[in-house]
Amino acid sequence: MKVKSCFGPDYKEYEIGDIVKLACDKPLNLICKEQLDNIEIAYQTYGKLNSDHSNAILICHALTGDQYVASYNPITQKKGWWDFMIGENKPIDTKKFFVICSNVIGGCMGSLGPKSLNPKTNQPYGINFPVITIQDMVNVQNLLIDHLGIKKLHAVIGGSTGGMQALAWSVLYPHKIKLVIPIATSYRHSPQNIAFHEVGRQGIMADKNWCNGNYLQEKKFPTNGLALARMTAHITYLSESALQRKFGRDLNNKNSFSFNFDREFQIENYLHHQGNKFVERFDPNSYLYITRAVDYFDLESDFSGNLSSAFRGFADNKEGKFCLISCSDDWLFPAQEIKKITKALSVHSINTSSVVISSDGGHDSFLIENDMLKNTISGFLNQN
Amino acid sequence: MKVKSCFGPDYKEYEIGDIVKLACDKPLNLICKEQLDNIEIAYQTYGKLNSDHSNAILICHALTGDQYVASYNPITQKKGWWDFMIGENKPIDTKKFFVICSNVIGGCMGSLGPKSLNPKTNQPYGINFPVITIQDMVNVQNLLIDHLGIKKLHAVIGGSTGGMQALAWSVLYPHKIKLVIPIATSYRHSPQNIAFHEVGRQGIMADKNWCNGNYLQEKKFPTNGLALARMTAHITYLSESALQRKFGRDLNNKNSFSFNFDREFQIENYLHHQGNKFVERFDPNSYLYITRAVDYFDLESDFSGNLSSAFRGFADNKEGKFCLISCSDDWLFPAQEIKKITKALSVHSINTSSVVISSDGGHDSFLIENDMLKNTISGFLNQN
Repeated sequence: MKVKSCFGPDYKEYEIGDIVKLACDKPLNLICKEQLDNIEIAYQTYGKLNSDHSNAILICHALTGDQYVASYNPITQKKGWWDFMIGENKPIDTKKFFVICSNVIGGCMGSLGPKSLNPKTNQPYGINFPVITIQDMVNVQNLLIDHLGIKKLHAVIGGSTGGMQALAWSVLYPHKIKLVIPIATSYRHSPQNIAFHEVGRQGIMADKNWCNGNYLQEKKFPTNGLALARMTAHITYLSESALQRKFGRDLNNKNSFSFNFDREFQIENYLHHQGNKFVERFDPNSYLYITRAVDYFDLESDFSGNLSSAFRGFADNKEGKFCLISCSDDWLFPAQEIKKITKALSVHSINTSSVVISSDGGHDSFLIENDMLKNTISGFLNQN
Repeated sequence: MKVKSCFGPDYKEYEIGDIVKLACDKPLNLICKEQLDNIEIAYQTYGKLNSDHSNAILICHALTGDQYVASYNPITQKKGWWDFMIGENKPIDTKKFFVICSNVIGGCMGSLGPKSLNPKTNQPYGINFPVITIQDMVNVQNLLIDHLGIKKLHAVIGGSTGGMQALAWSVLYPHKIKLVIPIATSYRHSPQNIAFHEVGRQGIMADKNWCNGNYLQEKKFPTNGLALARMTAHITYLSESALQRKFGRDLNNKNSFSFNFDREFQIENYLHHQGNKFVERFDPNSYLYITRAVDYFDLESDFSGNLSSAFRGFADNKEGKFCLISCSDDWLFPAQEIKKITKALSVHSINTSSVVISSDGGHDSFLIENDMLKNTISGFLNQN
């Protein structure tokens, strides 16, 4: 599975248990003006890099995703989160493509993040970790791509927060990518979405076991706060109609009301289940940092209110093409936000396809097997 | 301001500071099968009851509203919450109508609720207060109406949770009301809305200062949890476009990002402001009870899945008319839910008007001065 890497003097690659990491000694300058030393990037690859290094596809994961995009996730012991999409004879065919996915900086699945040890204090960074942005995530991914000896990616693909990363790739490294596939995402995070993030963060920070971010040192864990953040977020991941179809007002394994504050309805049970699953796999401080990175994302204001300016660099990339995908019932990133990107790309006559996936699943539709989604991505990647 | 009441042997009326209360010695049988003794109903009236007691209008307040619907609220020292609607020469003209508004049972503005003393223990009820429903709220309002000597209300009007009460009035006491005006409401609480309520409740109950509901005895207060519940709810009260128009991604009194977890954006500041204001006026356990009452509301399932059956009694009320009002941009109670009520009423040929108020304000539009809303209500109340 592992490629032969072209190790430079600044890189070191190693494995800890199931996690493959690239360590880089070069300091990284962040958008917030701080510097991070000792960058570590946990990543996975699937398929083989071809001789001219032209078949690489970078997948950018969503808010709480990880590098185990396909095959088997050794941590959860389940399938990778996009396994229906990536593998031999699948839409992103690993017989043809070399697929890379790395955990974002600030994450908690092996990449440098708030739970990593701060070499200056020998304690976890906690909230002394610098605030990161989507651009920083992409800059770190670029280090990995360089390390793997890839001059140009065949494609960058990502949904939701991963879609923001794909967009940022087209802005920051317009000549290093051929195809860009942002899915269920936007050029900026809306005030409503910032509001939902803030409620989640406040839930975590209000938990007494958060200990001002030092729960690892204190041997505590803000379980309730993190679960609450996840529960709130999960309401936004499904459409109203999907909630109605899946749960309606059905009671939770009973025939009549209990008249108390336990899980009376199935929808309550679902939310608690999602919250409880999440606390087993995610770091609360990482949740703060990654949601904040998303809040900051705004390609329009980065380019003085002119979104089309963001894609000026990509316009010079004569091979460059966009395929913008939105989900019909997504109220977190409604289709009209993708339309605004389409319009901005059209200013430069950039080759752009735009597809709306019909699904009542809401925002999370891109994580659910769907023929239209599979055919769209497969068709776009394999065009001549 | 106070009417001469026809006191029966079971009633006693008194004032504590600014709060007017009716106490009733008759035990109240609740939907949950428990019984509440020593009912107290805090209420306000505006205008004068006419000689044949035919000019009374009951206003039902929303989730966290109170009896101070018009004029001056002595607790907040602000105007009543619907002052633009009720008063002399206003749409609900107190020169003509006698307006009544009472705090719901389970509330915290003087009516019997979880912060009241339990006569059996001489301690606040806390979460030993029985679980109440919208129907119980209406049954208690009916006691008040009886006490005031009103055989038939000219109208029952309410928005949101108050609209559910107005609907429940038409079902439980179909011959005691002439006009029904439910606003921005539904015949049942949707799974998405139950989900938002559950997140709010979990926020309160996860706060260590909630003390299993005994914060009053412990001399503590779950400030963070209650503020969090309010912040979450407030996202749902405004439309996405209103959030965009009011706040957009504007920063909170600064020109550039601070790159931290403070209130970076105005929308965050707004939510915190709403949360902080709320904890000064509301009881956390009341929030649990009233949200739960709303969750339980489902006129359709109460009538075995046939919503039109709910209005069979009202169909016999030959004077009875409905005016259903929805707000165009309300995603908490979308206009199609009101349409379902219209359809159910049409089965019985009940005289029904249906009005959609154009506003991008979202759910809370009915609390904001709006000519269409004022003219609709005024016109409906004053028809011959």
